Amino acid sequence: MRVVILAHEQFPDRAKTAVGVLRYGDDEVVAVLDRTRAGDRVRDHVSDVQDAPIVDGVDDVDEPIDALVVGIAPIGGGFDETWRPDVRGALERGCDVVAGLHYFLAGDEEFVRLADEHGCELRDLRRPPADLTVSDGTASDVDAEVVLTVGTDCSSGKMTTTFELARAARERGVDAGVVPTGQTGIAIENYGIAVDRVVSDFAAGAVERMVEERAREYDVLFVEGQGSLAHPAYSGVTTSILHGAMPDRLVLCHVAGRDAVYGYEHVPISPPDECAALYESMADPVAPADIVAGSLNTRNLADNAARAAVETYADAIDAPATDPVRFGVGEILSAVLGEE
Amino acid sequence: MRVVILAHEQFPDRAKTAVGVLRYGDDEVVAVLDRTRAGDRVRDHVSDVQDAPIVDGVDDVDEPIDALVVGIAPIGGGFDETWRPDVRGALERGCDVVAGLHYFLAGDEEFVRLADEHGCELRDLRRPPADLTVSDGTASDVDAEVVLTVGTDCSSGKMTTTFELARAARERGVDAGVVPTGQTGIAIENYGIAVDRVVSDFAAGAVERMVEERAREYDVLFVEGQGSLAHPAYSGVTTSILHGAMPDRLVLCHVAGRDAVYGYEHVPISPPDECAALYESMADPVAPADIVAGSLNTRNLADNAARAAVETYADAIDAPATDPVRFGVGEILSAVLGEE
Repeated sequence: MRVVILAHEQFPDRAKTAVGVLRYGDDEVVAVLDRTRAGDRVRDHVSDVQDAPIVDGVDDVDEPIDALVVGIAPIGGGFDETWRPDVRGALERGCDVVAGLHYFLAGDEEFVRLADEHGCELRDLRRPPADLTVSDGTASDVDAEVVLTVGTDCSSGKMTTTFELARAARERGVDAGVVPTGQTGIAIENYGIAVDRVVSDFAAGAVERMVEERAREYDVLFVEGQGSLAHPAYSGVTTSILHGAMPDRLVLCHVAGRDAVYGYEHVPISPPDECAALYESMADPVAPADIVAGSLNTRNLADNAARAAVETYADAIDAPATDPVRFGVGEILSAVLGEE
Repeated sequence: MRVVILAHEQFPDRAKTAVGVLRYGDDEVVAVLDRTRAGDRVRDHVSDVQDAPIVDGVDDVDEPIDALVVGIAPIGGGFDETWRPDVRGALERGCDVVAGLHYFLAGDEEFVRLADEHGCELRDLRRPPADLTVSDGTASDVDAEVVLTVGTDCSSGKMTTTFELARAARERGVDAGVVPTGQTGIAIENYGIAVDRVVSDFAAGAVERMVEERAREYDVLFVEGQGSLAHPAYSGVTTSILHGAMPDRLVLCHVAGRDAVYGYEHVPISPPDECAALYESMADPVAPADIVAGSLNTRNLADNAARAAVETYADAIDAPATDPVRFGVGEILSAVLGEE
């Protein structure tokens, strides 16, 4: 598939879906749409991902494309009306449109009409299956080993860490699969349920279902966590994933230097060791699991400072740590796989 | 309003909505429907609530009625097809039907048609408002004092404790209001949002909205908790309420002698002191709150044993405790109101 990714005004730092698809997706990215960066290239901003031009809008893409992917997810998950011309333009040239918003494209009259007229598809990645139920509390019975990425905050590297760990495990010959719980992971895997969009009574059940399904296919599962247990808005989602997945081991993700909850600057982030203890305390009564490794996002630091920050972080949580993007996951993989 | 309450095969122990409406509702209960107890009276099974005959079905009620209330909520919240004749019968005689199921009456073709034909209303208490959003993390800024009931399990007395505390506070002259989060409380208050039915991303936001609304009307709010932080299926809902409400104080509810999660017998319940510590640890990073009192359901114990169990429980959680139904809330009210 040849795709363009919409990321207006947010590429790359606030466009984690866009960057995730660029880094892990199998699709060819023809262009990124960001009107504030038009003329730049992806590689001017992010290394280690496929490159593409950044343009003003879909009308600036001359080549044929199969799909437009909405690569940003604002707090609240609404549809920004400034994106409408690009979605309209994509549909008018026969492209599918893929989005992970709370606002469903398939509920928008104009988009439905255009998709119909031009024979293309609207794919809402966050629309959950209709037949979800409460969990049975049985995910710990699966044969696979289950590793869950958790965080000190949202947007702290859980999705990236999940995919980097799965890739490294496969390179080591481990039969590893991913359980995606958010729109980017679902877009990459073409599988998954956006747990934040599930009725809260069924959220743990949705995770349990995915773990039980994928455990029949793989020996080791990397479950993508969401939010943080200490997040004022998303902690319920985090809790549902922790108790629905019943993981064997946890990997704690943190952004170096971040000391307040993203988008909730009045709420400080607890020190990593306290966050780690909180996850273990919450796991304990349902399915005990320890933090066995740390993942630190050091993109705001220079190389020397990054290495030092990772060491400090490892000491704080008393477990091996790395920055998966900068240093790879070699130093934590054995601990994550339970080999130590 | 004159109502009948449907509680087939589950009255009274597994019919908390039925018992709640009997105990706290303003409506006159004409009969309870439970085919396994037909011929008994409510008072044969529950004291301290309004009395009514128990009958086989709605056709056995000769008096005029305004509404049928579905007073049971099975795990999963489905509609039991054995209830259909009673719902049909109620609609055919012009009664409204009120339910707090995940299954919406208003989505059932036969019920919609009958309600239409007979000019009556289908009220789904669990249907959330359409305009919910993520929380802002601001509930701690309200002028009212906020008290949240939490539990070591689901069905552990949170709703009852909430309403008993509010009633006792009002008797003491405190301008106290309730924030209901489940179907029974909503039925009693004619206000509220069933948080377990809200998309998980918006669950904390729904609670925050209610706290901010009711704080403009009352000086003290009693927020009805749900589930338990250590529940394998419902912990996400519990977490969303804790962080959405940002309470000043917590009251921990427990059922004497219960040592496994209701409906999840393979999951043991932690000792009350560990549960208390877990709630305080989870509250801490978002809005610190202590367990200031305990509520123990002792209905399975004799009087002497009940008194001893309350004392043991109070010692365990290091706070005053009571059984609100058996002994009243006089012994905990000062602590709950922050007067101690």
